[in-house]
Amino acid sequence: MKIVAAKSILRANDQLAEENRRALDAAGVLCVNLVGSPGAGKTTLLEVLFARLPDGVRPAVIEGDIAGVIDAERMQRIGVPVVQINTEGACHLDANMIAAALGQFDLATIDLLVVENVGNLVCTAGFDIGERVRLLALSTAEGDDKAVKYPAIFQGSDALVITKCDLQPMMNFDRARIRQDLARLNPQAEVFEVAALRGEGIDPLVAWLLDRRGARGSRGR
Amino acid sequence: MKIVAAKSILRANDQLAEENRRALDAAGVLCVNLVGSPGAGKTTLLEVLFARLPDGVRPAVIEGDIAGVIDAERMQRIGVPVVQINTEGACHLDANMIAAALGQFDLATIDLLVVENVGNLVCTAGFDIGERVRLLALSTAEGDDKAVKYPAIFQGSDALVITKCDLQPMMNFDRARIRQDLARLNPQAEVFEVAALRGEGIDPLVAWLLDRRGARGSRGR
Repeated sequence: MKIVAAKSILRANDQLAEENRRALDAAGVLCVNLVGSPGAGKTTLLEVLFARLPDGVRPAVIEGDIAGVIDAERMQRIGVPVVQINTEGACHLDANMIAAALGQFDLATIDLLVVENVGNLVCTAGFDIGERVRLLALSTAEGDDKAVKYPAIFQGSDALVITKCDLQPMMNFDRARIRQDLARLNPQAEVFEVAALRGEGIDPLVAWLLDRRGARGSRGR
Repeated sequence: MKIVAAKSILRANDQLAEENRRALDAAGVLCVNLVGSPGAGKTTLLEVLFARLPDGVRPAVIEGDIAGVIDAERMQRIGVPVVQINTEGACHLDANMIAAALGQFDLATIDLLVVENVGNLVCTAGFDIGERVRLLALSTAEGDDKAVKYPAIFQGSDALVITKCDLQPMMNFDRARIRQDLARLNPQAEVFEVAALRGEGIDPLVAWLLDRRGARGSRGR
């Protein structure tokens, strides 16, 4: 009889994530794990961000959802190669799912691969998928208390993207408060403030990402 | 050696949930499991809803969070008895946690017990905690595509409360679309549209809840 313990599942995931990372590095692909709550504006951020990429930087996307293909269709509409993963109940993507999805791409034709994870501020924090950059999207509509309530994901992300900043005047959202809480949990994290539908704040994020691409290999997870 | 399978954990949870439900019924307490994404406006909804309860209906709250006591402090500020559960990483409450929290209350002094679950549109769907009513909060800021992406929680809830309806003009949110998707997944579900900070749409929700209280026992989960 075989007994599979949670710890060994996580260890197997970490090994597979390391293999994904090596394959992506070898192909010159920067892999970004985009996490955040349902409705944080992850897909809209990608639509706008991809339009701002310099010529020659070729994006691709893996969409993670419990069900449906809504976000994958949005990516197809803007001409970005996309693979949809339906987790059928699972609350996060894992390295095994990503390994399978990578087989659907020709990595030689991709420079920036964004994995849009399942909308979940808890479970996605625990699983390395082989990314070089973990990007956390948080909308001003979600409130400025989220770092205190969901510390792990704020601790484990390389940058926080505050989305829907154009809505801030209508929200009880104090950017200084979330920046303070993040600085306490994760002093190295970058912070970007964007209003994607207005195209505001996107360029610094693009520049930072491309910088990470240059620095590829200098940082594992 | 003991091996605990996921299925038996769920079975144990269901049994414990049934015991919670019996204890709550016996004490005349209507228990509501309030679920939704981080930032859906669950706590604000409760603050406003409790202020609209008729005289003689005594509320209490169990707050579920990964960490922190922010929401419990908000309940204390409005004079509502509250027990905070910190899950320390777990992505949802379960019947065992609720059983422990119930021991902290004098049920004879409570008519309406709302359990504000961890902000999570996935994991909370799978766990009965012993409630009579499951209430799903979804804000207009989250987008109208959420029923397609997170079907289980829409299927398993008794009512959908669309929150932040005052913000709808600024959002890409089509109420007809979410109502259609919900009707397909869960035709029995009620729908309420509220703007809690403006006090709009609260009274029909209060009336419906009090009705459930009268109908207590007619419906298990």
